[in-house]
Amino acid sequence: MLPADRPRSHAAIEITVGEVLDAGLIPIVLGGDHSIAERDIRACAQRHGPVGLVHFDTHTDTGTEVFGVEVSHGTPMYRLVRDGHVDPKRYVQIGLRGYWPGEAEFSWQAEQGITAFFMRDVRDLGVDTVVEQAAASVGEGPVFLSVDVDVLDPAFAPGTGTPEPGGMTSLELLRAVRTVASRLQIVGADVVEVIPTAVGSADITALVADRIVREILTGIALRRRQGL
Amino acid sequence: MLPADRPRSHAAIEITVGEVLDAGLIPIVLGGDHSIAERDIRACAQRHGPVGLVHFDTHTDTGTEVFGVEVSHGTPMYRLVRDGHVDPKRYVQIGLRGYWPGEAEFSWQAEQGITAFFMRDVRDLGVDTVVEQAAASVGEGPVFLSVDVDVLDPAFAPGTGTPEPGGMTSLELLRAVRTVASRLQIVGADVVEVIPTAVGSADITALVADRIVREILTGIALRRRQGL
Amino acid sequence: MLPADRPRSHAAIEITVGEVLDAGLIPIVLGGDHSIAERDIRACAQRHGPVGLVHFDTHTDTGTEVFGVEVSHGTPMYRLVRDGHVDPKRYVQIGLRGYWPGEAEFSWQAEQGITAFFMRDVRDLGVDTVVEQAAASVGEGPVFLSVDVDVLDPAFAPGTGTPEPGGMTSLELLRAVRTVASRLQIVGADVVEVIPTAVGSADITALVADRIVREILTGIALRRRQGL
Repeated sequence: MLPADRPRSHAAIEITVGEVLDAGLIPIVLGGDHSIAERDIRACAQRHGPVGLVHFDTHTDTGTEVFGVEVSHGTPMYRLVRDGHVDPKRYVQIGLRGYWPGEAEFSWQAEQGITAFFMRDVRDLGVDTVVEQAAASVGEGPVFLSVDVDVLDPAFAPGTGTPEPGGMTSLELLRAVRTVASRLQIVGADVVEVIPTAVGSADITALVADRIVREILTGIALRRRQGL
Repeated sequence: MLPADRPRSHAAIEITVGEVLDAGLIPIVLGGDHSIAERDIRACAQRHGPVGLVHFDTHTDTGTEVFGVEVSHGTPMYRLVRDGHVDPKRYVQIGLRGYWPGEAEFSWQAEQGITAFFMRDVRDLGVDTVVEQAAASVGEGPVFLSVDVDVLDPAFAPGTGTPEPGGMTSLELLRAVRTVASRLQIVGADVVEVIPTAVGSADITALVADRIVREILTGIALRRRQGL
Repeated sequence: MLPADRPRSHAAIEITVGEVLDAGLIPIVLGGDHSIAERDIRACAQRHGPVGLVHFDTHTDTGTEVFGVEVSHGTPMYRLVRDGHVDPKRYVQIGLRGYWPGEAEFSWQAEQGITAFFMRDVRDLGVDTVVEQAAASVGEGPVFLSVDVDVLDPAFAPGTGTPEPGGMTSLELLRAVRTVASRLQIVGADVVEVIPTAVGSADITALVADRIVREILTGIALRRRQGL
C-alpha cells in the first residue's frame, strides 16, 4: 500500500492479486476499506470470467456514489456488477441492516437479480438455512467471498469504520464462512474494514478477522478433501 | 440540565417534556440516570391520564429507597405507580435479572398487578413472544416506553452505570422496541443510563442507544402508516 | 500468591484449599492461570477420593506440555487424570473450539473416556441439553467445577489470556454453572484466566467472573434447599 495515494494503492492490489492468481493460488486479501474489493474481484474475473459473489456485510455497497465519491467503500459492488465482473444472478448478500442504502439502490439490486438476506432473515431462518439458500443461489462456478467485518455486531467487532448494532455473532459468522468455502468453488476472498488499533477492545476485532480467514481456509481444505 | 443541582434539573426536564407534549409531539428523552423517568412520565400522565408503561431494564426500579435515597435511579417506577401516574395493570417490565431488588419489592409489584418478564423468559419464550404478551397486557390507551440500556448484556452496552451480565442482545432489543412502538400508542419514550464516554468500547453503547431511538421512531412511523 | 515464584505459589494454593476443605467448606478459587487447577483439584481429591470434573473451557488443557512446559495452563487436566485425581469417566468438557489441541491430545482423551462437548454441540443441541447430558455423564459423587472464562466469546470476556472467538454468551454460561451446581455434588470450584485490568472493556470480564461465582453459590444453595 502506498500511503495517501489511493489510485496507485488500488492498482498495486490488482497487480498483486493477479500475480497470486497466475501462480495458481487463491488470494485472501486483508483490508482496508471495502473499496479494495473492486480490484480484488476484478483481478479474479479477468482470469475466471464473471464470478459469483458471497458478500457478508451490513451494507450492500452498491451505491453509485457516497458523499459524491464514486470509488468509495460504499460503491465497489455496483461497479463490479455494472462492468460485468460479478454475475448479479450469482451474487448473494448476507447480514444487511441499518439505515443505508435507500430505495434507489435496493430497486437497482432487485432489477439486477441480486439476492439479499437481511439480519431479520438470519434471525428468523437461522444462519445455517440462509447459507444453504445462498449456496444454492450462487451454484456452480468460480465464486469470490467478501467479508466486511461490520456484518458482526459491534459487541463482536468494535474496531470497524461504520459499526451497526444488531449484527451477527462470531459463532454464526465463523460457521457461515467455513460452510460457504466448503460448498462453493472459492477463487479468492477478502476480509475488510478491520481497524485493529481502534480504541477499546479492538483487539477482539483483529482476532475474529484472523479466525474468519482460518475458517475460510478450513472450508477450502474440507472441499479439497472431498476431491472437489 | 443544571450541573450539580438535581432538583432543578429534574424540574427542568418535566417542564420541557410538558412543552413538547403541549405542542402535540412525542417526547423522546435521552438520559442520564433513570430517576428522570419520574419526571418524563409524570408530564405525560398529567396530559394523558395514567399511562401504561413498557419498561426494558435489568432492574425493576420499584424500590422505595436505594441506600436511603428516595429520589434515585432505583425508585422512579415505585413513585409513579404510588402517585397514580402509571397504571400498574398496564405496566410491563422486560429483561429482569441479577441480584436487586429483593422480596419486598417483588411482593409489592405482584400486589399491584405489575407484569414482569425475566431474562429467563426472554430466553425460554423468545423475545418476539415476550413482546407479543407484553403488548397484549398493556393494551389500548396511552403508553410510555422506557429503555434502560443496561437491559442489554454488557458485551453490547459496556458504558452504563450498573451493568449486569446475562442480558439481551442488540438484535433482540432493537426488534423489540420497534414492535412495541408499532403496536402500542406511544405518547413518550426515554433511553437512559447511557455513559457514552466510559473507558473501553463505550462508543458502542452510544451507538446502540442511537439505534434504539431510531427504531422507536420507525415503529411509530409504521403505526401511523396503518392509520392508527 | 508469591510474585515470580510459581512453585511456592502453587504449593500455597494447595495448602490453603486444603485448609478450607478441612474446615468443612467448599473452596471457590479465583485465578489466575489455569495451572492452579492442578493444585485446587488435587487438594479436593486427596480428601474426597478421585473427583468428577465439569470443565468449561475453549481448550481441553490436556496437553502433556505446552511450548515445552509441563506445568502450564495447558496441561493441568492431563496431569490430574494421569495421577488419578480426576476420574476420566466422570470428566466432561464443555465449550471446546479453536485450533488447539491436536490429534494426539484428542486421541488420548477418547482412550480415557473423557466426554467433550464442542461449541458446535452447544449451538446445535442448546446449552440446556448439553448441561443435562453432562450432569448425567458425571453422575453421583464429588465433583469439581472448573470455569475458564475464555469459554465465553471475547465479546463477553475480552480480558483473558487466550481469547477465542465463537464462544458462549454470558446468559448461557451463567445458567449452565447454576444448573451444574444445583444438580451435582460440588466439592470445589475455580474461575480462572480472568484479567480484570486488561486494556479495553476488561471490566466486563471481572463482572461476569463475579457473576459466575454467584451463580455457582446459588446453585449450591438451591441444592441444599432440596436437602441434597
